[in-house]
Amino acid sequence: MYSNGDIFVGEIIGTAILILFGAGVCAAVTLNYSKAKASGWIVIAFGWGFGVMAGAYTAAPLSGGHLNPAVTLGIAVDTGEWGKVWVYVLGQMIGAMLGAALAYLVYFAQFNANVPRGKTNDGRSVDQPTPTLGIFSTIPEIRNPVANLLTEVIGTIALVLPLLAFGLNKGLGESGTLVLIVAFLVVGIGLSLGGPTGYAINPARDLGPRIVHTFLPIPNKGTSDWSYAWVPVAGPLIGGALAGLIYNVAF
Amino acid sequence: MYSNGDIFVGEIIGTAILILFGAGVCAAVTLNYSKAKASGWIVIAFGWGFGVMAGAYTAAPLSGGHLNPAVTLGIAVDTGEWGKVWVYVLGQMIGAMLGAALAYLVYFAQFNANVPRGKTNDGRSVDQPTPTLGIFSTIPEIRNPVANLLTEVIGTIALVLPLLAFGLNKGLGESGTLVLIVAFLVVGIGLSLGGPTGYAINPARDLGPRIVHTFLPIPNKGTSDWSYAWVPVAGPLIGGALAGLIYNVAF
Amino acid sequence: MYSNGDIFVGEIIGTAILILFGAGVCAAVTLNYSKAKASGWIVIAFGWGFGVMAGAYTAAPLSGGHLNPAVTLGIAVDTGEWGKVWVYVLGQMIGAMLGAALAYLVYFAQFNANVPRGKTNDGRSVDQPTPTLGIFSTIPEIRNPVANLLTEVIGTIALVLPLLAFGLNKGLGESGTLVLIVAFLVVGIGLSLGGPTGYAINPARDLGPRIVHTFLPIPNKGTSDWSYAWVPVAGPLIGGALAGLIYNVAF
Amino acid sequence: MYSNGDIFVGEIIGTAILILFGAGVCAAVTLNYSKAKASGWIVIAFGWGFGVMAGAYTAAPLSGGHLNPAVTLGIAVDTGEWGKVWVYVLGQMIGAMLGAALAYLVYFAQFNANVPRGKTNDGRSVDQPTPTLGIFSTIPEIRNPVANLLTEVIGTIALVLPLLAFGLNKGLGESGTLVLIVAFLVVGIGLSLGGPTGYAINPARDLGPRIVHTFLPIPNKGTSDWSYAWVPVAGPLIGGALAGLIYNVAF
Repeated sequence: MYSNGDIFVGEIIGTAILILFGAGVCAAVTLNYSKAKASGWIVIAFGWGFGVMAGAYTAAPLSGGHLNPAVTLGIAVDTGEWGKVWVYVLGQMIGAMLGAALAYLVYFAQFNANVPRGKTNDGRSVDQPTPTLGIFSTIPEIRNPVANLLTEVIGTIALVLPLLAFGLNKGLGESGTLVLIVAFLVVGIGLSLGGPTGYAINPARDLGPRIVHTFLPIPNKGTSDWSYAWVPVAGPLIGGALAGLIYNVAF
Repeated sequence: MYSNGDIFVGEIIGTAILILFGAGVCAAVTLNYSKAKASGWIVIAFGWGFGVMAGAYTAAPLSGGHLNPAVTLGIAVDTGEWGKVWVYVLGQMIGAMLGAALAYLVYFAQFNANVPRGKTNDGRSVDQPTPTLGIFSTIPEIRNPVANLLTEVIGTIALVLPLLAFGLNKGLGESGTLVLIVAFLVVGIGLSLGGPTGYAINPARDLGPRIVHTFLPIPNKGTSDWSYAWVPVAGPLIGGALAGLIYNVAF
Repeated sequence: MYSNGDIFVGEIIGTAILILFGAGVCAAVTLNYSKAKASGWIVIAFGWGFGVMAGAYTAAPLSGGHLNPAVTLGIAVDTGEWGKVWVYVLGQMIGAMLGAALAYLVYFAQFNANVPRGKTNDGRSVDQPTPTLGIFSTIPEIRNPVANLLTEVIGTIALVLPLLAFGLNKGLGESGTLVLIVAFLVVGIGLSLGGPTGYAINPARDLGPRIVHTFLPIPNKGTSDWSYAWVPVAGPLIGGALAGLIYNVAF
Repeated sequence: MYSNGDIFVGEIIGTAILILFGAGVCAAVTLNYSKAKASGWIVIAFGWGFGVMAGAYTAAPLSGGHLNPAVTLGIAVDTGEWGKVWVYVLGQMIGAMLGAALAYLVYFAQFNANVPRGKTNDGRSVDQPTPTLGIFSTIPEIRNPVANLLTEVIGTIALVLPLLAFGLNKGLGESGTLVLIVAFLVVGIGLSLGGPTGYAINPARDLGPRIVHTFLPIPNKGTSDWSYAWVPVAGPLIGGALAGLIYNVAF
């Protein structure tokens, strides 16, 4: 029902907004010289949830606002319509990289002040640079690929199965109430299921910003941790597909 | 208006989602090596509220999304229709146990790191194992069965009487706004009335996960505290029945 | 459009729910042996807001859900219909006292443990009893009657003028979206305008629980501070009337 | 579709409510003798978001509830209708100054207690006066005009582009759901993008209160920092115009 061009543009804009808010809130809580420094898990979970809301509702008239290959996959598994999946995923990946770059620009001065015994423009000193990957991509608290994968699979089912039941496969359309519910669903997943791995639950959300992090000239940025990168891609894809199967059988 | 099979499947799925989020957020705040460790009461209350939202709205097309024997009982007392109560309650109990098991899997690595002077896969040491029952079931701050029962009775009336007045006995149906209100009602009960006992307000929410906790192979899991288990079953059932009576008389 | 009997019952039930949640959240944050002890201003503001939501939406089919003499007054000033004001206010006062008593019962064990070097049922000791009036009624941070009155007047205008503009004078009716907006309006007033006096913005909310506090047998309950009691009655009534006038002129 | 008089009155009232809540929550978190002292970034972000909700929904029937020259500009760039822009902006500036004055009155006793080794009416002493500009206007954490401008430009695009896509250019009208989405959008911008500069994203929100701060007789109020004042005016105007262009091209 959406044209390829609209899907492409919509998913780029929507996913860019999502990652701008999501990477933004992680920067806000992580970086020195941010007013929201160390303001806690509740801030992160609501920041990501409202990022989904802003991105999905903006993209809704163009593409339905998937913003997530796991959602696109779950809908394809359920409906059997695979023809536009590549357009969605391509837009999502480009949008995720664009959003990560925008978040970098918003926190440009903070990123550049991430130097040991460095000085900000105000002449204040920064004692300790901060590893920055966690602003862009997920890092597990306990590195255990099987357990981490399982966390991401279940977390993504908890996202995609409700979305399918809510009728998202018909598109968010004009229903503002539905986008509010989706926003709070994402907040809830963050609060409840984000503890072990930081809840990627979206391959584009993790992979796109990780690519950007690899190339950005951030001082003392630390590792981009590519050895873990497959988990937050594979886990959400498995979870999305399983959610599509469960929905197809149970509903 | 719902078939027995749909009710059964809907209540299993919906209650499993509810407990996945609810036990999940308690694990997130309680366990070592969780990113949300010690993030506070606001996180717990919103985590449970959005769990109700996710579960109830997912289950709505199949069963109306009760997810709680006290709600089912309150509706039966009000309407006098008792024929499907057993299907609802059976689904709720199975779903609650399933959800508790899923939350255990999400936090599998964290649960396994709950050992004194143990080591995680990262080689970091854990000094103190944490009692784990509070992740699954409720524990009173002051152990006083009469006072605890009273807290649960009033807390459940504060849940079920509004639900009946909101028209839940006609089913959540397609009304997304109603499920948002229900979510925030549950958040409010947690914030306001959860202090003394941890607000079971749902027999399945407490009993199902307690059974699961009894059998899960969690190191240093601590007591499953069966001597208290009757309070969060009896209190919510009394509260649900009273709410049905009050609604029937006053409205 | 509502009968006197329905208004009376509706305002009692609705205001009782409001105060149960509101006094409840203050107890949750204040009392020893509460799981929400010291969980902060965000908890208090959302607890009160969702209390308004729960109470107003429950009462809506019976009375329109005013729950506040300042709201009733503002509507009367705007519409010129004064005939049922006394029924609303009477119900609100009774409901506020009932709600305060229910909150006391929910936290019964915690209130009874409010003794110096006392022991709870668990044998733990309480070092310091806590003044309890702040759970029931408002206390200014800086005692300055003119400034405190001004704070309450402006805070109440910020409640009642939006309510009138939102169309509350036609009753909350079935509009769940409106009750959500009202809930978040009350959260916002708490967050933004509650700092100086604790935002009574409702004469029944302050006076009813103060009466109950005067008579409850709470150990070490401290003063009921009747010398301040006129401020959170007069301020909200002035604010409600002014809001009715402003609305009548500007809209 | 709105008359000039209605637009003028609506924008004054709506923007006054917005700034009353916004400056209010900053006062609540900043000033000594406030119950919400140091309650964190989550309080600030929700306080501003619900201020937008309260102001915009109150103003909606009169003016559509822009409350922000950047929003008005974005709509004008998109629609090409410039005739009423000056009425909107004039009302917004007057409303912003009125709201700042009202917030000052709400926290009158707290502002007057902002003296070194001073005494409140209760006889308690204040050790350190607090700089007060941050209650009224934005201050960057790292003073870097180019970076600060970029932050404000992107932050404002993240506000206005979604608003345009949500259909705000048709006016908020009666749609309560839309105003909720807008409220949470503003909360999300605060949480995610507010860290570097305090997110003006609205020239009137920053300039109006800065004028008021310059003239208010607050003891030890500190600088009004006029050298920075152009950034939170220019940044949001550029961002609003860019959002209008992007929307016009992409949607």
